[in-house]
Amino acid sequence: MIENRDFIALGVNAAMSIAAFFVTWLVIPLFRDMFLKANLYGVDMSKKSKQKVPESAGVICGTVFLIVLFLFIPVPFYDQLTSKLFPHHEFVELIAALLSICCMILLGFADDVLDLRWRHKLLLPTIATLPLLMVYFVNYNSTLIIIPKPLRGLIGQDLDLGFLYYIYMGMLAVFCTNAINILSGINGLECGQSFIIAVSIVTFNIMELTGQFSDAYIFSLYFMMPFTGVCLALLIHNWYPSRVFVGDTFCYFAGMTFAVVAILGHFSKTLMLFFIPQVFNFLYSVPQLFHFIPCPRHRLPKYNEKLDKVSMSFTTFKEKDLNILGYLMFKILATLRLVDVRTGVGEDGEYTECNNLTLINLILKFAGPTHEEKLTLVLLAIQVLCSIAAFMIRFQFAKVFYDVIH
Amino acid sequence: MIENRDFIALGVNAAMSIAAFFVTWLVIPLFRDMFLKANLYGVDMSKKSKQKVPESAGVICGTVFLIVLFLFIPVPFYDQLTSKLFPHHEFVELIAALLSICCMILLGFADDVLDLRWRHKLLLPTIATLPLLMVYFVNYNSTLIIIPKPLRGLIGQDLDLGFLYYIYMGMLAVFCTNAINILSGINGLECGQSFIIAVSIVTFNIMELTGQFSDAYIFSLYFMMPFTGVCLALLIHNWYPSRVFVGDTFCYFAGMTFAVVAILGHFSKTLMLFFIPQVFNFLYSVPQLFHFIPCPRHRLPKYNEKLDKVSMSFTTFKEKDLNILGYLMFKILATLRLVDVRTGVGEDGEYTECNNLTLINLILKFAGPTHEEKLTLVLLAIQVLCSIAAFMIRFQFAKVFYDVIH
Repeated sequence: MIENRDFIALGVNAAMSIAAFFVTWLVIPLFRDMFLKANLYGVDMSKKSKQKVPESAGVICGTVFLIVLFLFIPVPFYDQLTSKLFPHHEFVELIAALLSICCMILLGFADDVLDLRWRHKLLLPTIATLPLLMVYFVNYNSTLIIIPKPLRGLIGQDLDLGFLYYIYMGMLAVFCTNAINILSGINGLECGQSFIIAVSIVTFNIMELTGQFSDAYIFSLYFMMPFTGVCLALLIHNWYPSRVFVGDTFCYFAGMTFAVVAILGHFSKTLMLFFIPQVFNFLYSVPQLFHFIPCPRHRLPKYNEKLDKVSMSFTTFKEKDLNILGYLMFKILATLRLVDVRTGVGEDGEYTECNNLTLINLILKFAGPTHEEKLTLVLLAIQVLCSIAAFMIRFQFAKVFYDVIH
Repeated sequence: MIENRDFIALGVNAAMSIAAFFVTWLVIPLFRDMFLKANLYGVDMSKKSKQKVPESAGVICGTVFLIVLFLFIPVPFYDQLTSKLFPHHEFVELIAALLSICCMILLGFADDVLDLRWRHKLLLPTIATLPLLMVYFVNYNSTLIIIPKPLRGLIGQDLDLGFLYYIYMGMLAVFCTNAINILSGINGLECGQSFIIAVSIVTFNIMELTGQFSDAYIFSLYFMMPFTGVCLALLIHNWYPSRVFVGDTFCYFAGMTFAVVAILGHFSKTLMLFFIPQVFNFLYSVPQLFHFIPCPRHRLPKYNEKLDKVSMSFTTFKEKDLNILGYLMFKILATLRLVDVRTGVGEDGEYTECNNLTLINLILKFAGPTHEEKLTLVLLAIQVLCSIAAFMIRFQFAKVFYDVIH
């Protein structure tokens, strides 16, 4: 149950989160020249002016987040610090979570600077979660999942996933870090979606604070409140027209922070509900991500300088060059009208064009050319609607499937 | 006391350290182009050919080190993993130590990329040690220091430093990270000195393994053996003529790793004995570091292309422009013949030249122009001699001052 000292710790954390917001907000512009000098910049491809925009400001965010949490570490344990019964098992959760997050910031920054390969992007988050999984193992090792009521006749009341559960958690971290990274490309989107997810988690945690599993949600809030603070500060600078880009650093940092609180707070299913747009975007992207349909280096929408609007970007290929799976995927998407297809393209008319498979392009298919800022707003509105849906599923619909919800 | 399972864990760790050596050794050249493409390179100022040399290979070292230790985490706890008596207090030491080291690798890499300012270099290591100090506080909070015998009449048997002891530990981390960084500038030196210090610590830990405080030394070995492995691999590539530079990343990573094991292993005094050349170099540098005597941007020795040798580099100033403290320091150093002074320099003869205050220049003052590789060898020989002296002080001389040594 929630105690008085938890409220105090949460209050201190909230105050530090506000401070984190202001510090991040103030500091980001100060580093502008340093980033430009270090060749850490990009040129906004959807703007008339081709000026240099500092890249990977996420590393500032992440550093402020780490500093705030380092300073916060003693607070929840204040009255037990000199006790013989010091709760080392809770303490180690905090430290291990920070270790995983710090690792991901390092990896993200290395990726921004060095342009790592895909194999690193999959391998390193997996390794970064190892300390976390180890903590989970020694503290809980609860790999039992409750089976939804309709399936209980088949499988039984519950199922012990054992080692598979750890695989699942490792994959969750890899998914979260990369899912945000691939729903990106227009000003304010990476940061905006992360902010909405973070606010959703905070709301969810607060709603559950008086419940049975309050410890897990308090723990989650310790991370999510400062995260919300630094994320909002970055969003202000990253909003259209962006004065800074967030970089892979931010996407990895955000994804890992979400994964960490969901794993140690035992609400990975609920987290996935907040990730509905990202899950959809990932599934929609699969044919290109796994190269069943050709994937150009960049899939971001095309900028029309005259209209100052962005529209769908396309990938070009010969239908007969697709392998059987690729062809099948393409035809299914075309039949469902989920892609914009233009046949008979190219000199000899043998080429087919279809929009790059991202949620952004899909929206542009229906909406037509749109101003970049408006597009971001539409995408963030979808994120908000999905969060509302997630809450409804979590608190109403889930009762049909489960007795006790955790 | 050391148990059978400790030997097994140490054996596994040793095997992993050898693997870490080979992985690092193989991987460093593979990243060459990636670093060059990312503008992470330097030009060796003491070579005829002005080709680009990849900078901050320390980040590869550090990453391999982290991966190896992440994989190693479960090993020492193998037979207690499912026990109700799982030693969370030992586990949290490992995790917190890794957190501090990971933070420093991130900071070091950020420094290499962004060229951070001095205030960051002092502030951030302090913050990076916070989790470590917190662990020290809840696990030991032993801030009692034993007074050397000759002083006991004045102060008593022991003295509780309380909060000051934490300040001391924080400063130790800042010192270690920066001390290696300022004894640098010639091929193989940063890495070579770190390797010798690491081997000294490993030797010291093994010598003490059967003693009263074996747990602390086992813990230290878990970190120092993999460190020795990755450090040696980097040294091979960084040796004259360097194919890679180590970068601030490596110096910070090395310094923090030393500080971490010394703090949690309670042998910070012994560590300082292994740091004698660094301590001397720091003290000798103080007049320039704190700008009592002008400090140029680079203090590395001057390359003579004709001789293919390096010689002292100089700083130029008017004696009357020095403030009183600077003048005093200068005169003391000149009287002790610890600086090479040339007066009456410049057009109007009003300027004075004196060698930049680094151990490297001091050696060149006595040795004259020297080939770079030979100079590194001389400096590393001094490091080895100091380590031998340190062992003699630690095991013979200390008996005069203390009853029980820890």
